[in-house]
Amino acid sequence: MRNNNNIQMISKILVAVDGSSHAEKAFEYASYMAKKCGSKLLIAHVLEEFVGVGHSILKELEQRDIELLQKYKSRAKESAASISIDVIESRGNDVAEEILRIADKQKVDTIVVGDRGIKASKEFLMGSVSYKVTHYAKCPVIIVR
Amino acid sequence: MRNNNNIQMISKILVAVDGSSHAEKAFEYASYMAKKCGSKLLIAHVLEEFVGVGHSILKELEQRDIELLQKYKSRAKESAASISIDVIESRGNDVAEEILRIADKQKVDTIVVGDRGIKASKEFLMGSVSYKVTHYAKCPVIIVR
Repeated sequence: MRNNNNIQMISKILVAVDGSSHAEKAFEYASYMAKKCGSKLLIAHVLEEFVGVGHSILKELEQRDIELLQKYKSRAKESAASISIDVIESRGNDVAEEILRIADKQKVDTIVVGDRGIKASKEFLMGSVSYKVTHYAKCPVIIVR
Repeated sequence: MRNNNNIQMISKILVAVDGSSHAEKAFEYASYMAKKCGSKLLIAHVLEEFVGVGHSILKELEQRDIELLQKYKSRAKESAASISIDVIESRGNDVAEEILRIADKQKVDTIVVGDRGIKASKEFLMGSVSYKVTHYAKCPVIIVR
């Protein structure tokens, strides 16, 4: 985010998706913001690598995730969410760290993540990915519920 | 946040201010968003009540905070941040809880808070107010750094 009000404050928004309903809400929020603020929209998915998962299964999962990203890209285009819509498919054993790495590398102004939430004593607590992203991000983070 | 894309998704934004540079950034972000998204802007300050602080000191602090809110309101009006700008001055011994209470009562769509941050082992961790607001809010929360 830049301080000068005369220039674009939120020029690039990163939204992390994973096919869940929480990510769906984050995508809707990010698309809406990108449209209203004239921001570039970057849709990212991180494939979580588990020890012991074979190469062929990973390839299959990766293909499924690429299709998911393409669906989101099409939807963002259809709703004219942004003049610039990009997708990133990535892999890592720590999803939050990977999202933060993408945010840094792509120099985004805002990260949008859905929150899975954990029900604890009548209240909801943040899920682990959104928790970590919120704690360590260098830019503004939007947690969507 | 409502799901229908044809209606206003982010109709009311609550930003918490306290005179700090972190809150200043949150205010800038919230004002920019409100302007771009056509949202109502609600600027809130919570006076933290400490045990043992006398009535006259509290009155003095409250007066200072009301002036702070009026300054923010003037700035938001000057930059035409929103067609509707309101301020709320509140008191409580738990700032985060009070912010959450205002958000519920005022039915806001998004809460914006600055993050004080704590430097720990080369990384920044969230401050206690933003941490609690992020954990317990029912609506999307934006943590501004």
